[in-house]
Amino acid sequence: MQPVSIYCQSIEVSLRTGPDIADITTALEQLIGESRIETGQLCATMVGSTGSITTIEYEPGVVEDLKQAITSLAPPGREYEHEKAWHDGNGHSHVQAALLGPSIALAVRNGSLKTGTWQQVVAVNHDNHPRKRVIEVTVTGLAG
Amino acid sequence: MQPVSIYCQSIEVSLRTGPDIADITTALEQLIGESRIETGQLCATMVGSTGSITTIEYEPGVVEDLKQAITSLAPPGREYEHEKAWHDGNGHSHVQAALLGPSIALAVRNGSLKTGTWQQVVAVNHDNHPRKRVIEVTVTGLAG
Amino acid sequence: MQPVSIYCQSIEVSLRTGPDIADITTALEQLIGESRIETGQLCATMVGSTGSITTIEYEPGVVEDLKQAITSLAPPGREYEHEKAWHDGNGHSHVQAALLGPSIALAVRNGSLKTGTWQQVVAVNHDNHPRKRVIEVTVTGLAG
Repeated sequence: MQPVSIYCQSIEVSLRTGPDIADITTALEQLIGESRIETGQLCATMVGSTGSITTIEYEPGVVEDLKQAITSLAPPGREYEHEKAWHDGNGHSHVQAALLGPSIALAVRNGSLKTGTWQQVVAVNHDNHPRKRVIEVTVTGLAG
Repeated sequence: MQPVSIYCQSIEVSLRTGPDIADITTALEQLIGESRIETGQLCATMVGSTGSITTIEYEPGVVEDLKQAITSLAPPGREYEHEKAWHDGNGHSHVQAALLGPSIALAVRNGSLKTGTWQQVVAVNHDNHPRKRVIEVTVTGLAG
Repeated sequence: MQPVSIYCQSIEVSLRTGPDIADITTALEQLIGESRIETGQLCATMVGSTGSITTIEYEPGVVEDLKQAITSLAPPGREYEHEKAWHDGNGHSHVQAALLGPSIALAVRNGSLKTGTWQQVVAVNHDNHPRKRVIEVTVTGLAG
């Protein structure tokens, strides 16, 4: 039986004031190439409590629609308990990120992500200022 | 030390116009049986940007309550930017699916999913027409 | 090539009536120590359909803000179909938990969780009474 191997790496992406959404699919595909893993899974985790990861069809309309929905979940204008102690104005960012969740698990098949044709993996910055976000990636599986 | 093995497979489920919710627990348990893995984890990923995966108690009342909550998150009647370019009427589907997320990671113990007695794994179709949805499944762990 | 190993364990945490939120980061770090795995991933799954897992900055303000946001997603006062058959008063608990999701995938680097400095892993009880919640944890990776 062929042994299972594991490949760990991180990617960085610069994001504007939240909610901002970046397509990280190409960066993940590159890591899979480096890993030489053909069949298995990829887990990606946002480092930091004001970011999240999900998938969408990365076209400008959906991106805008998702930004609005995220803002509605926890609008910046409300009163947040977090502000009373910290005064950093990002109470909404923490709530939004916790609701979306920091991680994703994807299938790797034939050395590539097995996602839909119009399904891209995205990193979301919810913070109230631009952030360079780090995503930790772990690929587990069998080499070709 | 016993080597870790990995088993990859996909399942298909026919769903009605979204939000529609199907119990895929039995199909996942069958794949675990095929994998012969006794201890480890199972990751399942929805292929396509208008579907999602989560767990619920799969009884008709909760299923209906969850459908209503999903619809409230992004109602079909609103104006979506996605529509202005694509006119396919499913802007809400994309937003709903991105908020719920396409993937899940579950524990495999004693050759079975370690979930609650009333906790079923469900696939959700958010699209505005019936869809045959594909879920990619990766089981990683130790054989018995 | 060093073989990949896997370590499975569960943790328990006592939670009050939902939404209640507990920091499980220290318990997860202890399991990673027991596993002797230095590099890989950790998947954690809430057992039961009225609990969820996510990450937040675990300070009292954010915890309170997240509780309020969770309650807004599915308030206890509404009429739920689940109640009509079961009369157990926790229709909102099921909906909240399904929207947040039961699982998380985190990176293990240098024998520790690779999360942000102010990012803690939390277990959420959504049920309408105190619960001892069980979380299944699977650590996969390479020993040091």
